[in-house]
Amino acid sequence: MNAAANQSPGPITLGELAVRFGCTLQGDPSQRVSQVGTIEGADSTAVTFLANPRYRRHLATTRAGAVVLDPSLAAECTVPALLTRNPYATYARIAAYLHPQPLHEGGIHAAAVVDVSAVIDPQAWVGPLAVIEAGVRIGARTTIGPGCVVMRDVQVGADTRLVASVTLCHGVRVGERTLIHPGVVIGADGFGLAPDRGIWVKVPQIGSVEIGSDVEIGANTTIDRGAIENTVIGDGVKLDNQIQIGHNVRIGAHTVIAGCTGISGSTTIGQRCIIAGQVGIAGHLTLCDDVIITGKSLVSASIHRPGSYSGAVSIDETIKFRKNAARFNQLDSLARTVRKLSNAAEKSASDESGEV
Amino acid sequence: MNAAANQSPGPITLGELAVRFGCTLQGDPSQRVSQVGTIEGADSTAVTFLANPRYRRHLATTRAGAVVLDPSLAAECTVPALLTRNPYATYARIAAYLHPQPLHEGGIHAAAVVDVSAVIDPQAWVGPLAVIEAGVRIGARTTIGPGCVVMRDVQVGADTRLVASVTLCHGVRVGERTLIHPGVVIGADGFGLAPDRGIWVKVPQIGSVEIGSDVEIGANTTIDRGAIENTVIGDGVKLDNQIQIGHNVRIGAHTVIAGCTGISGSTTIGQRCIIAGQVGIAGHLTLCDDVIITGKSLVSASIHRPGSYSGAVSIDETIKFRKNAARFNQLDSLARTVRKLSNAAEKSASDESGEV
Amino acid sequence: MNAAANQSPGPITLGELAVRFGCTLQGDPSQRVSQVGTIEGADSTAVTFLANPRYRRHLATTRAGAVVLDPSLAAECTVPALLTRNPYATYARIAAYLHPQPLHEGGIHAAAVVDVSAVIDPQAWVGPLAVIEAGVRIGARTTIGPGCVVMRDVQVGADTRLVASVTLCHGVRVGERTLIHPGVVIGADGFGLAPDRGIWVKVPQIGSVEIGSDVEIGANTTIDRGAIENTVIGDGVKLDNQIQIGHNVRIGAHTVIAGCTGISGSTTIGQRCIIAGQVGIAGHLTLCDDVIITGKSLVSASIHRPGSYSGAVSIDETIKFRKNAARFNQLDSLARTVRKLSNAAEKSASDESGEV
Repeated sequence: MNAAANQSPGPITLGELAVRFGCTLQGDPSQRVSQVGTIEGADSTAVTFLANPRYRRHLATTRAGAVVLDPSLAAECTVPALLTRNPYATYARIAAYLHPQPLHEGGIHAAAVVDVSAVIDPQAWVGPLAVIEAGVRIGARTTIGPGCVVMRDVQVGADTRLVASVTLCHGVRVGERTLIHPGVVIGADGFGLAPDRGIWVKVPQIGSVEIGSDVEIGANTTIDRGAIENTVIGDGVKLDNQIQIGHNVRIGAHTVIAGCTGISGSTTIGQRCIIAGQVGIAGHLTLCDDVIITGKSLVSASIHRPGSYSGAVSIDETIKFRKNAARFNQLDSLARTVRKLSNAAEKSASDESGEV
Repeated sequence: MNAAANQSPGPITLGELAVRFGCTLQGDPSQRVSQVGTIEGADSTAVTFLANPRYRRHLATTRAGAVVLDPSLAAECTVPALLTRNPYATYARIAAYLHPQPLHEGGIHAAAVVDVSAVIDPQAWVGPLAVIEAGVRIGARTTIGPGCVVMRDVQVGADTRLVASVTLCHGVRVGERTLIHPGVVIGADGFGLAPDRGIWVKVPQIGSVEIGSDVEIGANTTIDRGAIENTVIGDGVKLDNQIQIGHNVRIGAHTVIAGCTGISGSTTIGQRCIIAGQVGIAGHLTLCDDVIITGKSLVSASIHRPGSYSGAVSIDETIKFRKNAARFNQLDSLARTVRKLSNAAEKSASDESGEV
Repeated sequence: MNAAANQSPGPITLGELAVRFGCTLQGDPSQRVSQVGTIEGADSTAVTFLANPRYRRHLATTRAGAVVLDPSLAAECTVPALLTRNPYATYARIAAYLHPQPLHEGGIHAAAVVDVSAVIDPQAWVGPLAVIEAGVRIGARTTIGPGCVVMRDVQVGADTRLVASVTLCHGVRVGERTLIHPGVVIGADGFGLAPDRGIWVKVPQIGSVEIGSDVEIGANTTIDRGAIENTVIGDGVKLDNQIQIGHNVRIGAHTVIAGCTGISGSTTIGQRCIIAGQVGIAGHLTLCDDVIITGKSLVSASIHRPGSYSGAVSIDETIKFRKNAARFNQLDSLARTVRKLSNAAEKSASDESGEV
């Protein structure tokens, strides 16, 4: 479509990169690069990085134009190096600079359906076959991609991007510089049901969802609206794909959550937590700041102390696993037997030693 | 859009609420409320409720206009109370009354694409950028929200709501008063594959899906069409977000299933079951009525007795968990050692006692 | 819509079926069938099959027009039989023949939005309210269903079908004869984040996704684009619904993966693997060819030997399960106690026997 601005800067000298990103350059400052590459695949036009010491051996053989590198490894690098204490974050910034997102000029595509009462910043872009309902407000330079549905009274801040096929239900609020991937649904009803003589009565979901700024939300993730008050996703939170966030969940700033994790209603997650994939967190819990949960764990009680928590055993050969799993179902009785044996052995030892 | 009917009733007296919802009123019947609120956040214009005894202490301090409450707690309530044996269900009905869904007038949006052979009730609403293919029938007062795709020969009953961005594949049937949230896909092919000399031959999925009445289906949930016969979701079933229902699954009436649960093909679930989140149920099983499965459990055999079943251990500190998990892989050998010790101890005891 | 070609062949003789699908016919070659059915439900117009010996008893009572059957069971079949060594695969092919997908005539629906620079084969069909961005190429006889979004520079091969509501992000490539179900998102950004002084810096996702030929991708599955190089799904791979594939994952040809499984970034899966539902596979691993992983397992280390691997215990009654789960958290200490007892018993035995 009418992608225009934010084009790649073209070949840039290593000297300029070093200045722009605060690195010390080891090598020829006039050499030019124009893209990024892997340490094994990069040619002389590409910048790469080394963050994981496991790949250190590639320093001897890489043909990259430059490697973003911790200063301690400078001597091992046979090509130019951009030295910095945080090579991965610096690489990320260089990559964003060399490979910018194409930006759309502001405007509303002729095949979008926009209610007359919506207020769309002139610098915002609304793509083809997007729907913008009544009372919506869209901020400057925000893009609403093709096929998105933005329902009544939604507010989206500036510089936010709904890539495509995103659905924001009525009244949802999204901050600035937030990136929302296709298939995301924000603000569907929370799962509120009251049992009443054998049937389930729907509890109306009156609250909404507030998404902060600098948030990223992965493809097909769902975030439910609150029952009475709002579901709240803090600034800088990063959510991977296919995450399910129940109603009235609150997620603190700069927490990251990997794919397929589910968080039940009314649970509060602290700031700077790292939650791995396929984790399940029960409802009405509180996790304090700086908690790490490893993959596939079940969290069924609140966590009040920062640290790393785990709950899933890993695979074994099926034939061995099944034997051990069968024993799992006898664990309590096994433990009782051991206690009895242990008590008997202690008694026998004390009898022998004449103790009372 | 043209939302018109079903507006909020405005402020209503507690006396009228008590009569309408069958409560005993404790307090001034002429006092008025207009919305719902949390027990901590409600002001005098809001009704709240107390269902969980954990929050009982808030009865002393709430400033709500009224609390929907069990009669046994009436004495502790310092503000007006609407007394009823099922406060949560009564609250749910009051909330629905005070906060009705805005209803659309019937009609087809100019930017919808509707096949001439489709039969849309004049009281139904088809939103912008919805697609209605050939042979579809849509019942009275049903709304097909923006961005929905309703493929050929689908039938949707009266008073059903497809919120937005829902996809119903060809031939699917949906009952009345059913609510389907964004991103739901009903009637995609089941996962049927026949191995044949190193490749997989697709088994055509000829069946369809039948969704009952009074069903709710959460965002991004998927329900596959049957291989030959239909997949069937019973009346009053409530499905949370991101649930996966395989082909030819049958779910009995009034069963509820929480988010991220997966049910493999040809499994039958009884009525009034409660299945928590991230549960996995293998294929070709039968679960009887009134089964409860707690979160993240794996069900790999049929269940013939009502009751509660569990299968997931909860987290521990990673360092402790890993030690215990390592022992899990030695459980069978540990149990054998214990049996040997136990046998030896018994033998030794019987030797000592002179038994044969 | 304008579905025209590929209509059902109508009633066909068993003789013709036997010739066309390489079966030996037991029965009257002039009898006709026109559809498929279950072994219990089929009438004389329907072909059914018996693949699972569990259903063998139905051979005596089925009223099907014919049963696709292993020759070893021919004598037990009371109706005509189509005998073949692989009844399920043969049934699959017969079902596809009797129940063909309705095909669309080529053309672009008036309500599709197609960029002028896109190259759409004249035999391809683009449905209503589909978006085709700049630089896209669509092959012959491929159908892009209603509501699909195909972003800039995507390439889709011939005879591929995007059913409806599929989103392909920029630059994604899809092979031939591939079937993609509604809600699928291919090419959203991978989850790449670099920590930097308490915040997360987005790592641009420059790579793309390559989907092979003869692939099937289930509803609401997500496949992320690579960080630098591409995510790759091999030929003949079959993915069920709601699977999450992280960036730079590579899946070998003819591997099948069941619903709700998640694969973290940079993991390589071999060929002909069978991965069940709700499995979680950590990042940066390698699984060799011909690996089987049973349902709900966690894979946290590479697998270098073909075979079957498991990692999830199944349910028990909640009251029993909780007792055993509590013991799980004491397993290491239990094992130490057993070792002590075992050592003491050995010592005592050797003392008694006079061994040193």
